[in-house]
Amino acid sequence: MHILVTNDDGVQAPGLLALAQEMRILGKVTVFAPDHNWSASGHVKTMDRPLRAREVLLADGTSALTTDGAPSDSVALALLGVVKEKIDLVVSGINPHENIGHDVTYSGTVTAAMEAVIGGVPGIAVSLHAPENHHGILDYGTAAKIARCVTQKVLENGLPEGVFLNVNVPYLKEAEIKGYMITRQGLRLYRDALDARRDPRGRPYYWIGGDFPTGVDEPGTDFGAIRAGYVSITPLQLDLTAREAMEKMRKWKWEKG
Amino acid sequence: MHILVTNDDGVQAPGLLALAQEMRILGKVTVFAPDHNWSASGHVKTMDRPLRAREVLLADGTSALTTDGAPSDSVALALLGVVKEKIDLVVSGINPHENIGHDVTYSGTVTAAMEAVIGGVPGIAVSLHAPENHHGILDYGTAAKIARCVTQKVLENGLPEGVFLNVNVPYLKEAEIKGYMITRQGLRLYRDALDARRDPRGRPYYWIGGDFPTGVDEPGTDFGAIRAGYVSITPLQLDLTAREAMEKMRKWKWEKG
Repeated sequence: MHILVTNDDGVQAPGLLALAQEMRILGKVTVFAPDHNWSASGHVKTMDRPLRAREVLLADGTSALTTDGAPSDSVALALLGVVKEKIDLVVSGINPHENIGHDVTYSGTVTAAMEAVIGGVPGIAVSLHAPENHHGILDYGTAAKIARCVTQKVLENGLPEGVFLNVNVPYLKEAEIKGYMITRQGLRLYRDALDARRDPRGRPYYWIGGDFPTGVDEPGTDFGAIRAGYVSITPLQLDLTAREAMEKMRKWKWEKG
Repeated sequence: MHILVTNDDGVQAPGLLALAQEMRILGKVTVFAPDHNWSASGHVKTMDRPLRAREVLLADGTSALTTDGAPSDSVALALLGVVKEKIDLVVSGINPHENIGHDVTYSGTVTAAMEAVIGGVPGIAVSLHAPENHHGILDYGTAAKIARCVTQKVLENGLPEGVFLNVNVPYLKEAEIKGYMITRQGLRLYRDALDARRDPRGRPYYWIGGDFPTGVDEPGTDFGAIRAGYVSITPLQLDLTAREAMEKMRKWKWEKG
């Protein structure tokens, strides 16, 4: 079993190290992750410039690969042959903040898992629901153990074709976690606001600012599960077709352009 | 009616100009697009740096806004208030190449429309199925007219909540186009290959290379429609939940981590 571990926070992020260490219990691990943070960077395929891949050491003295590309580029490069040995599974994370609702197309953590399934390999994204007001170093230990348990289940059962997993873990002690819940993608509520400023030369610039996003706390959803103390496991697919809308739109009066 | 026009090829791309000119027949148009190409850049929300927005002139002498952010950032900035007047609709394109199958999460053209719907405004992405071997300047005239007709239908009928449109137009003369088809997202077949090279200092670097992607030519899909000479209109949603997989996964033996 050869597991590729990646993330969107950069190769030296503590969440990645915790994940890689747990994955080593399941098999051989190759770490291949971006050299800087790519949060909310989306599903990238870098085609207008070449990419680097170089070796670095992680904080536990183990070796890893890093690239100047996006999380999904790391996965693509690995599957295309920068990593020589066949990869059986891609696990991405651990992201310090939950990836729920509409986050899934923005999130580098999730789009890395998306890239895995496009490459024909199961993909699992793992995120922690760290408290908004948390300062200092997060404890990724419980989330990493849970990531290992979910990965073990995927290895035992296999994932349906084209499906990848979005796993979110509450920030609780292991004994406090109530269990696992298979959920649907919920609704994110972004609270972005424009923060318009002037640079030292008087020219305008803009931050996308505002409050940290929240979500609709609904039973059966990703956000509902983590808020209730459960590990949320959402199976996702690459088909975005809005099937109900198809029928409605066929009734519109269509003539030729 | 105030329409925001954006794209992922950059504000000076001819496909954007053709689209903006047709949209002006329907209402007031504001162009706000990236200052460089963001193809396959994914669904981005730039949060780690501020963004610029400045005025430029398009090739027809009209005024436009441009940003150093991604296509989805253009839409977010516009909706958050960089564009003062209320925006009723976002149209993105015209991309010179089709965006079909799994392209939809990579594509800056499509993710701009995705960002619109997250911001509560209908979004339409328009792409042209230019021949792979085409060289020289493309004729966006027919695709732009078709984009106007589709937009007109959206204004008349409204889109279901959370739905945005992915429109692909065959590269044909207007009289040769067979009609409009409401389609589902098909299957893209990527043919990426690793192109490993050495820089002048002997260090390795990698292009994600290979052949231009193809697709599964299946009736009822985006690719099937454009290959058969129809305009493909695929309603897409932000919910990626793989509902069939949920039931299967609930039967797995879950114990606590």
